[in-house]
Amino acid sequence: MVENLSMPYVVGIDIGGQTTKMGIVDMRGQVLAQTVIRTDTHDDENLYVADVADALEKIIRESGCEGKIRGIGVGAPNGNYYTGTIEDAVNIKWGGVNKKIPFAEMLSRRMGGIQVALTNDANAAAVGEMTYGAARGMKNFIMITLGTGVGSGIVINGEVVYGHDGFAGELGHTCAVRHNGRLCNCGRTGCLETYCSAIGVTRTAREWLSLTDEPSILRSLDNITSKDVYDAAKEGDSVALKIFEFTGKMLGQSFSDFVAFSAPEAIVLFGGLARAKDFLYEPIMKSMNENLLPLWRNKIKIMFSQLKESDAAILGASALAWEL
Amino acid sequence: MVENLSMPYVVGIDIGGQTTKMGIVDMRGQVLAQTVIRTDTHDDENLYVADVADALEKIIRESGCEGKIRGIGVGAPNGNYYTGTIEDAVNIKWGGVNKKIPFAEMLSRRMGGIQVALTNDANAAAVGEMTYGAARGMKNFIMITLGTGVGSGIVINGEVVYGHDGFAGELGHTCAVRHNGRLCNCGRTGCLETYCSAIGVTRTAREWLSLTDEPSILRSLDNITSKDVYDAAKEGDSVALKIFEFTGKMLGQSFSDFVAFSAPEAIVLFGGLARAKDFLYEPIMKSMNENLLPLWRNKIKIMFSQLKESDAAILGASALAWEL
Repeated sequence: MVENLSMPYVVGIDIGGQTTKMGIVDMRGQVLAQTVIRTDTHDDENLYVADVADALEKIIRESGCEGKIRGIGVGAPNGNYYTGTIEDAVNIKWGGVNKKIPFAEMLSRRMGGIQVALTNDANAAAVGEMTYGAARGMKNFIMITLGTGVGSGIVINGEVVYGHDGFAGELGHTCAVRHNGRLCNCGRTGCLETYCSAIGVTRTAREWLSLTDEPSILRSLDNITSKDVYDAAKEGDSVALKIFEFTGKMLGQSFSDFVAFSAPEAIVLFGGLARAKDFLYEPIMKSMNENLLPLWRNKIKIMFSQLKESDAAILGASALAWEL
Repeated sequence: MVENLSMPYVVGIDIGGQTTKMGIVDMRGQVLAQTVIRTDTHDDENLYVADVADALEKIIRESGCEGKIRGIGVGAPNGNYYTGTIEDAVNIKWGGVNKKIPFAEMLSRRMGGIQVALTNDANAAAVGEMTYGAARGMKNFIMITLGTGVGSGIVINGEVVYGHDGFAGELGHTCAVRHNGRLCNCGRTGCLETYCSAIGVTRTAREWLSLTDEPSILRSLDNITSKDVYDAAKEGDSVALKIFEFTGKMLGQSFSDFVAFSAPEAIVLFGGLARAKDFLYEPIMKSMNENLLPLWRNKIKIMFSQLKESDAAILGASALAWEL
């Protein structure tokens, strides 16, 4: 972080499937101002970028930060750190297969040439957690984001892994079920994300409710969300509890393979579904340790993000901008 | 590699269960002299280290390299790069469970203080391939060793991944078959190594021969080895060809998950079984590409080691010493 007193602020932007959160951050990691817009109101990325720029300019103006923004960091699904593009983002309304959007360049032009750095949301979250959160001081950990999808940010020797092409760390699309797995948005079947994302949890709920007659609060609901399953679990609903047990088991199995790759000190969970930590922690630990090589058994920590959800994403994305 | 003309040589040592190979290597990767001793003649690691030092001093003296050795690199089962120790090495006569041998330190003391770096054999092979072989100039690749077991060395940003504890890169023990998988030496089931190692190939052969009546050269053999399967495949034996097709398919499936982790430029195959490249390449490529996320399809190279097999282990270990 270079001290530059005439431009002491950065912007962090977190692009999710439904909403886009953005904030102005100072050198101490304080979020001075933040705002949210919808991600899914446009099919056209130009209109969306215009919305982002308008919202940003508004909070910059209102907080008296005009001319003082050093750079903008963006966490986006399928964001490529090397090229600043968003590619094949199937969970974004204005994205899609074979669509390569030069987002960093587009936003920079709209924002009067302020430089923009971009990576995927999970990598940004990992940077945030390493700088301000549960992974402070850790050199080797894996961030797993449990949101609409399952994302990941892998940190090795204190650095986010981007790989040869900028897209490393797609652990939500590793294979959790080889045969007759659930169909994934990516076009394949059995991806971890089809089981362990917020949407995966609702799919589990729908499947199980239709396969059994077990009584459950969830039966009275028309359109079950993962929050409904969480609320039901808090009420002691046995179907909801089993859904989280299954979700944790699937996560733990996959985590044991991730550990065999990079031997991390910890796996840090983040995102909407990570709020269900009371129901996920035990089954994850049990299943991970059952599946780990003996040398790692009972040695790998499972942790939950220590940052306020919106702050972590904004802070992580903003940290990228200091490096511009 | 720093040019240091007064000390232009390194030593590479490859410790196997039965034999220990060692050699003197120059900056161009030429093995100037090499020798072999038994690994399994002593129960006491001190006597073994004395044997290694005696054998080394002899070839150093004979080749006129006294005082010109920059460092010593060692590839050893369960070798820990961070600590220079060999831990829980159950396949080594002077090793064993709960035995932590400070091998690098012991050898360095015996060799008049020459520095010693140590890691496992697959990591050493990765460094060797990056320094002298197929991965020259690559910053991101995964080395897979197909020998008695399946080992791996992961290179990210030009550095071998050791992880939090020094034991990262156990991809042979990621799960290839979740349900009813084959029993592995590690005590778990379904590990990639139970299908795709030399021993895995012979297990496939035995299973398939007992399950079908298909004619095969292999039926006339008492104790099938992976080399027998390779020889039969070269003769056009359809069962042998199918065994390699299956082995390649299993590798390709797992590789697609490895790519999702570190987005490598290439996966490099090394070891006895990699000699069957003519039978493995196509099925690996087909299955890997079928299972890869669209963004990586047809973009990841599968390569085979370019190191002379007799020198490869020594070269790999020696390459570690350049980094000292």
